[in-house]
Amino acid sequence: MIDFRPIFFTVGILLSTLAIGMVVPAVADLIAGHSDWRVFAGAAGLNGFLGITMLLTMRAGQTSITTRQAFLLTTLSWVVIGVFGALPFAFADLNLSFTDAVFESMSGITTTGATVLTKLDAVPPGILLWRSLLQWFGGIGIIVMAVAILPQLSVGGMQLFRTESSDQSEKVLPRIAQVAAAIGIIYVLLTATCAALYWISGMTGFEAVAHSMTTIATGGFSTRDASVGAFNSAAIDWIAVAFMILGSLPFVLYLRAVRGNLAPLINDSQVRWFLIIAAMAVALLVAWQVLINGVRFGEALRFVSFNAVSIMTGTGYSSADFGLWGAFPVSLFFFLMFVGGCAGSTTCGLKIFRLQVLYAHTVSQISKLMQPHGVFIPHFNRRPIPAGASESVLSFFFLYIMAFGALAIGLGWMGLDFITAVSGAASAIANVGPGLGPVIGPAGNYASLPDAAKWMLSFGMLLGRLELFTVLVLFTPAFWRN
Amino acid sequence: MIDFRPIFFTVGILLSTLAIGMVVPAVADLIAGHSDWRVFAGAAGLNGFLGITMLLTMRAGQTSITTRQAFLLTTLSWVVIGVFGALPFAFADLNLSFTDAVFESMSGITTTGATVLTKLDAVPPGILLWRSLLQWFGGIGIIVMAVAILPQLSVGGMQLFRTESSDQSEKVLPRIAQVAAAIGIIYVLLTATCAALYWISGMTGFEAVAHSMTTIATGGFSTRDASVGAFNSAAIDWIAVAFMILGSLPFVLYLRAVRGNLAPLINDSQVRWFLIIAAMAVALLVAWQVLINGVRFGEALRFVSFNAVSIMTGTGYSSADFGLWGAFPVSLFFFLMFVGGCAGSTTCGLKIFRLQVLYAHTVSQISKLMQPHGVFIPHFNRRPIPAGASESVLSFFFLYIMAFGALAIGLGWMGLDFITAVSGAASAIANVGPGLGPVIGPAGNYASLPDAAKWMLSFGMLLGRLELFTVLVLFTPAFWRN
Repeated sequence: MIDFRPIFFTVGILLSTLAIGMVVPAVADLIAGHSDWRVFAGAAGLNGFLGITMLLTMRAGQTSITTRQAFLLTTLSWVVIGVFGALPFAFADLNLSFTDAVFESMSGITTTGATVLTKLDAVPPGILLWRSLLQWFGGIGIIVMAVAILPQLSVGGMQLFRTESSDQSEKVLPRIAQVAAAIGIIYVLLTATCAALYWISGMTGFEAVAHSMTTIATGGFSTRDASVGAFNSAAIDWIAVAFMILGSLPFVLYLRAVRGNLAPLINDSQVRWFLIIAAMAVALLVAWQVLINGVRFGEALRFVSFNAVSIMTGTGYSSADFGLWGAFPVSLFFFLMFVGGCAGSTTCGLKIFRLQVLYAHTVSQISKLMQPHGVFIPHFNRRPIPAGASESVLSFFFLYIMAFGALAIGLGWMGLDFITAVSGAASAIANVGPGLGPVIGPAGNYASLPDAAKWMLSFGMLLGRLELFTVLVLFTPAFWRN
Repeated sequence: MIDFRPIFFTVGILLSTLAIGMVVPAVADLIAGHSDWRVFAGAAGLNGFLGITMLLTMRAGQTSITTRQAFLLTTLSWVVIGVFGALPFAFADLNLSFTDAVFESMSGITTTGATVLTKLDAVPPGILLWRSLLQWFGGIGIIVMAVAILPQLSVGGMQLFRTESSDQSEKVLPRIAQVAAAIGIIYVLLTATCAALYWISGMTGFEAVAHSMTTIATGGFSTRDASVGAFNSAAIDWIAVAFMILGSLPFVLYLRAVRGNLAPLINDSQVRWFLIIAAMAVALLVAWQVLINGVRFGEALRFVSFNAVSIMTGTGYSSADFGLWGAFPVSLFFFLMFVGGCAGSTTCGLKIFRLQVLYAHTVSQISKLMQPHGVFIPHFNRRPIPAGASESVLSFFFLYIMAFGALAIGLGWMGLDFITAVSGAASAIANVGPGLGPVIGPAGNYASLPDAAKWMLSFGMLLGRLELFTVLVLFTPAFWRN
């Protein structure tokens, strides 16, 4: 039997944190004189009560957890925050159904950025702030998980990022706690810098804070219906591009950079691949905009960079309806959705390191075809890839495409047209936010979808965010067997 | 340096065969009194002259070829037949451009079934017969290649199908020639049976022969604009379903079945998976048609079975415009395109055995997550999968998705809308035929596409037909290095 106490203890910590987080929008609504503050206060009280009860009753006194507990804990954490973080949406002055509330909350905590809210410009500040806070928490949560938990669980090739110290099990926990704390400080500093730059460039203080949190988290919730496009400012667009990219790089490398060692950040092959793929996509789209649509180069570069980086990193802001750019951009954006950023960042998607591992494998396979008796060992970041990690990545890729296909077919069954179904499925699993086409594209939103489709998409976001295996392993009978 | 003589010698054999094949439509047009017979006679003469010249000048006296020669020979064979088989299309009374002629010919020899011809009902018999013959040659060609060449080259996991005798290199060639001849006889018998049944069910003799060749080859060229739907006969539909399925099973198993040993065919896990996937797709689509569109069960079963089997096996016949069935069928058909049939059949696509290997790997990966120190060996057909074959399949899957993505993005650049670009790319690489949407869907055709898109699609068909690696290996500098 699995001992649930340490799991509920941790969930208790998360619920208490959620309660503290809810105080912020409560205060914001109180200042703005909006009655929603009562909803936030009430939800904070409920979450706080539940959280503290769990903390007090589930205290286990253990310092280590088993592999199964770790899987259960990870999935449960995201589900619990998804559900309890939905309370303000459900009870605030928005008239959202329970389905819509959970969808919005799950889209927040998974840093997806898909929304069912319309008329954001008229939504009170508390709800806007809560959406940003959920993404901000989700962003740091996933970085810590990618640094502390996933490498130990060997999920989807993440064992490639086990640090040397991980093997000395005695010292793991304190060291991981240290690293997590240091990354947390960097996360806060980056957010503050981003907010300051947004503010200087013309956003109000409130908007600057709200957007900085969803930029660094590559989340994509905005306070405006027209997303970042509403500000119509080149400076704001370029700041967003810079911080979306910063949110997509491995945060552990920032730690070393802060200590004065820039070499790992600059030489990291994952960082290079990420930047090269982004640059290639931007170059192709700029060429299209200039040659086919006759847009001026400077303007093309600005709008293309913003929207391509937004989609590739899974942020999901938009500054233009790229659905109107023509055939090529739509097809390219569809495939860009799957790419994502680096491991240990706030991004989702397949992630660059997996594409590198898959590419290295394919190249060695081609060499092997010509020299069947030759030995060709695929490398990642100048090191041979261990066989276990390779298989893990290769299986992840297959499962990813299968999950995408199953979700798209399921959405089709719900009556969604082809482009909505396939782009919605891709967008959910890669935690992007908007899809393609007239319904859920950059100029649309998810409000009109049937409830069942919203639940499927919410599950897809969870699956994608937790690297598929972490969630799916719970659905195997073997997991629950003694 | 690569010795080209044995390669051109084989190409000479193929061109001579092509010349003999062209006599058949020449005779058909002569009987019908259509002047196209001169085109076929001329093309036959040219091909025969070239073929015999190669046979006489390139006689090498070698009995074995190197790995590189085998790769070059395989790709060159399909390219040469694609180009020289296009002669009748280019010079007949059709007004086709060179691009269109090569597209139609490549679509034929790769058993794809995508067409640029409109008003088929008015096309003279010679051309219709030539289209069927190209697919019929392509079908037997790919089976022989899958039995004789690909397992030796270890392309995309095909080494799983090396027979026990392959390792005794002395006896390989005679044995393979025997097997190929026996399979050829079975292929002819199946075609004849199919033609007889079509004829009994109401097709004219000419139509029965033309359709039987493209059914068993899972090619999909029809003599009618409305494809098999034009006959509006339940009997013909079900005969087509049966023979499309027969064309999708491993032909080597028929050899044993003919010798009285039915067990390998019945117990083969690939055959079972194929039938189960097809049955699941049919069940879902029938449910949709009955529940959502209110179609009677019997009618739904007939039309669903025909079109689902046609798309999944990559045949590409249609008996109804399934684009009008609603959202779900379109999404499901898109993913069905990728499935394909069994290795060693006339089908293309990912193929069932690869899905089995990928699935087995993913399951063992999930087990490993729970027991990191356990050993879980994936199995295929009750045998452990050798590591090399696994990696080969996993890389193949990645390369397949990448090739699909690159082709779809390229088609987008040519101005094709999203559904046309992605379904066209999938359809070409999986050798299906029709795509989805109003342009290239079951009720449309490829005539209106820009020339560059047609060349891209032709290359995609070749890539998919020759299992990607066989072609791509020629594009590596290492292949041409000494």
